[in-house]
Amino acid sequence: MRMYDLILKKKHGGVLSKEEIDYLIEGYTAGQIPDYQMSAFLMAVCFQGMNEEETLNLTMAMARSGEMLDLSAIHGMKADKHSTGGVGDKTSLILGPLVASLGVPVAKMSGRGLGHTGGTIDKLESFPGFSVAISNDRFIQNVNEMKLSIIGQTANLAPADKRLYALRDVTGTVDQLSLIASSIMSKKLAAGSDVIVLDVKCGSGAFMKTYEDAKRLAETMVKIGNGAKRHTYAVISDMNQPLGNAVGNILEVKEAIAALNGKAPEDLMEATYALAAYMLVGAGRAATVEEAVSLLKEQIQNKQALAKLAEFVKAQGGEEAYVYEPERFAKASILHEVKADRDGYIHAMNTEEIGMTSLILGGGRETKESSIDLTVGIVFEKKIGSKVAPGDTIAVLHANDPEKCRLAERRLLSAISIKEQPIAAPKHILGFVE
Amino acid sequence: MRMYDLILKKKHGGVLSKEEIDYLIEGYTAGQIPDYQMSAFLMAVCFQGMNEEETLNLTMAMARSGEMLDLSAIHGMKADKHSTGGVGDKTSLILGPLVASLGVPVAKMSGRGLGHTGGTIDKLESFPGFSVAISNDRFIQNVNEMKLSIIGQTANLAPADKRLYALRDVTGTVDQLSLIASSIMSKKLAAGSDVIVLDVKCGSGAFMKTYEDAKRLAETMVKIGNGAKRHTYAVISDMNQPLGNAVGNILEVKEAIAALNGKAPEDLMEATYALAAYMLVGAGRAATVEEAVSLLKEQIQNKQALAKLAEFVKAQGGEEAYVYEPERFAKASILHEVKADRDGYIHAMNTEEIGMTSLILGGGRETKESSIDLTVGIVFEKKIGSKVAPGDTIAVLHANDPEKCRLAERRLLSAISIKEQPIAAPKHILGFVE
Repeated sequence: MRMYDLILKKKHGGVLSKEEIDYLIEGYTAGQIPDYQMSAFLMAVCFQGMNEEETLNLTMAMARSGEMLDLSAIHGMKADKHSTGGVGDKTSLILGPLVASLGVPVAKMSGRGLGHTGGTIDKLESFPGFSVAISNDRFIQNVNEMKLSIIGQTANLAPADKRLYALRDVTGTVDQLSLIASSIMSKKLAAGSDVIVLDVKCGSGAFMKTYEDAKRLAETMVKIGNGAKRHTYAVISDMNQPLGNAVGNILEVKEAIAALNGKAPEDLMEATYALAAYMLVGAGRAATVEEAVSLLKEQIQNKQALAKLAEFVKAQGGEEAYVYEPERFAKASILHEVKADRDGYIHAMNTEEIGMTSLILGGGRETKESSIDLTVGIVFEKKIGSKVAPGDTIAVLHANDPEKCRLAERRLLSAISIKEQPIAAPKHILGFVE
Repeated sequence: MRMYDLILKKKHGGVLSKEEIDYLIEGYTAGQIPDYQMSAFLMAVCFQGMNEEETLNLTMAMARSGEMLDLSAIHGMKADKHSTGGVGDKTSLILGPLVASLGVPVAKMSGRGLGHTGGTIDKLESFPGFSVAISNDRFIQNVNEMKLSIIGQTANLAPADKRLYALRDVTGTVDQLSLIASSIMSKKLAAGSDVIVLDVKCGSGAFMKTYEDAKRLAETMVKIGNGAKRHTYAVISDMNQPLGNAVGNILEVKEAIAALNGKAPEDLMEATYALAAYMLVGAGRAATVEEAVSLLKEQIQNKQALAKLAEFVKAQGGEEAYVYEPERFAKASILHEVKADRDGYIHAMNTEEIGMTSLILGGGRETKESSIDLTVGIVFEKKIGSKVAPGDTIAVLHANDPEKCRLAERRLLSAISIKEQPIAAPKHILGFVE
C-alpha cells in the first residue's frame, strides 16, 4: 500500500477500505507518512467527502492510535456527555451529579479549556483543593463508590487526532464534516463510556452557524457512535446567546449550584434535562425521556443531586462547604454594570464576541500557558427578547482591572443589538438525533 | 498575507492576485511556506483550477524564482522548440541545424533525459568529444557566429518549479492543466528565447492520452507564452507510435543525419517541417508556414542544414566527420530481428511500453545516476497500418546483452497488436494552436 495511491483514490472520489484507512492513520501516527502527503489527502477529503463507513473507520483508527481507557472495572453502563463548545455552558457541572445521584456511573475524562472561559476542570478547581490528578485506580474506585469522578485527559488519548487536528488547523481543512465528527468522536470512543450524549451547538457562538450544519454534524456523530456500539444521542441547541446568565469560571459554578437548588434560568435547566435524560435512557435507568425528566426533577427537589456534588467535590480533595455556602467563593474586586442607552428589545447577542469579552477580563486562556482568573466574568440580567430602557442594567462585569473592564464593556456593548420591535425569546433546544 | 488564507481562498474557488501568487512562490522558494501547506494548496488547485491570469502569473513567478537567461547579446529573434516528450523524437537534432542554416538563431538550453531514451544532450554526445559544458559567453558567441549552440541546463533555472514538481509528484497533484502548463513554460521563459514552438504529444506514449487534453494543454501554454510577450505556437502531434523508425540514442542520431540528407520517414519530416516552420514564421524569417516549408525543403536538398550540423558539432568539440560518415558511430554487438507470428495488420503500438523496451536494453536512465548505453535501441521496419505475414521482421533490436535482448523482445511483442482487418496509417500532425 502506498499513501500516494490513497491520495489519488480519494482525489478521484473513491472509497477507502478499512485496511487503507488503518494504513493511513497508523502510518501517520508512526511518522512514516509525511505531513505534505496527509495535507493533500485532507484537502481531497474536503472536496470528495467520506461515506459513513469510511468516517466510522477513520474514527476507530484514530481512537485506537493511543491509549483506550478501560472502564470495564466500573459496574453498570457508563454515561458521558460532550459539548461542541459554547459560551456559558456549565451543564456538565449540573448533570454529572444529577445523573450520578440516580445511580448511573459518570466517569469523565476532561481537558482544560482554551478560549473564552476555562473547561470543566478549571471550573471545578474553583473549589479550593479540588484536583483531577488522581490515579486511574482511584478514579475507577470513586466511580464505583459514588458514581461520579473526573480525571485529567491523558496525553496519549487519540494522538493521531491531535496531530491531524494540528495539521488541519494550518492547511485550511478544518471544516469538513467527516473530519470534524471523527475528531470529536475518536476521543469519546477512546474515553470508554457506553453511553455518549452530544450537545451540538449552533449559532453565533458555535462552530456550526446554521441549524442544518449542526444537524448534519449531529447525525454523523450519532452514526459513528452507534457504529462503534455505543448508545449515542445528540441534542441540537441554540448558541445565539450565552447559556444561562453567567459567563466565567466561579460565576458559572455558582449558577450550577443554584441550578442544583432549583433556582436557575430556564434555558439552562432545559439543556440540562434534555442531555441528562438521554444519559439515563441510554444507560437503561429510564424507559423514556419523559420518565427520565421526572426522575431528574425529583433529584433537584430532594437535593440529592446537590448532595452528590458535595460528595464528589470532597472525594477529589475540594472544600465541600462551598457547595452549601457559595458566598465563600473568591470574588472579583470590581462589579461594573453595563447599561442600555436606548429603549427597545435585545434582538441579537454576538456570542463569540461575548466569549471574547470574558477572555479580555482574564477568564480564559489565549495560549496553553496562560493563567486564568477564576473570579472574573459576566452575569447577564437581560437576554434576547428582553425589553430595555435607557439606564437598565444589561449585564454586570466582574473584573479585577479597571482598564480591562473598560475594554470589556466596549466589546460587550458592540456585541449586543437593541431594536425597537419586540422579539420573542428564542427556543434553546432545537432538535434531537437518536 | 498568510498562506493559510490563500489556501482557503483557492479552496472556496477564489482567484488569486498577482501579489498573492508572488507571495506564494517567493515564500515557498525561500522555505518560509512549508510543504504541507503548499500540497494542500495544490490539491485545492486540482479541484478549483486557475484562470488564465493566475496561470500566467504563476508561470512568471516560477520563471523569476531563479536565473533568467539573458540572451540580449544575441542578434535577432531567438527561436526555441519544446516537446512534451515522446518516443523516438529526434526532431531537435534536425530542426536546430535547419532553422540555423536559414539565419535564425537557436540558443538551446537542454537537460539530460530521464526515462526511455536520453535527452538531446545525450544524443549529441554520441559524437565523440561533443560537450555542452561551455561558458555562457562562448554559448552566446557561438550562436552569434553560426546561429546554433546548446548548453547544459543551469541548476538554478526556475528552482520553484523544481521544488513544486517534486512535491506534486508525491502528492497526487501532477495532472492539473495550469500546473502542468506553468511548469513547462516557466523553464522556457527563463531560458530566454523570443519564439517558442511547442510540440504537444498525445496518445499511448504521451502524458496526454487524448487529443482534447493535448489541445487544452497546448492552448494554455500558448496563452502563457503570448502573455509573457513571446511568439508562441503549438503543434499537436500523434504519439500512438514512435516518431520515425529509430528509438535509441545513436540510432536516432543516425536517423536525424539521414533526414538532413533527405532520407527520412514521412512522419518525422512532417513533424520537423511543422515545428521548424513556426520557428521561422515566429522569428519573421518567413511570412507564412507555406513559404517557411519551401525554404526548409531547399535547405535539405542543398545540404546546407547538414553542413550546419557538422559546423555545430565541431564548434562544441565533436568529431564532425561522423556527420558525413555515420557508419563510424559505435554499434551494438547483437542485432536481433523481432518477427511477426501471424498474418494481419499492425493496429496499435503501446508506445509507453516501447519506451520501456528501450530502457530494458540500456538506452535510458532509470535514475539520475544511471549510465546510458548509447548504442542500443530499436529500429522499426513496420508501423501502424503495415501489413505483416508470419516471419516478417517488425523491428530490429540493437543490444549488448542477450538476456536483456530476450526480455526486450517479449516486451516489444506484447506492445504490438496485430489484427486481420486492414487499417490506415495514422496522421502524425493532428492540430495547431497559433
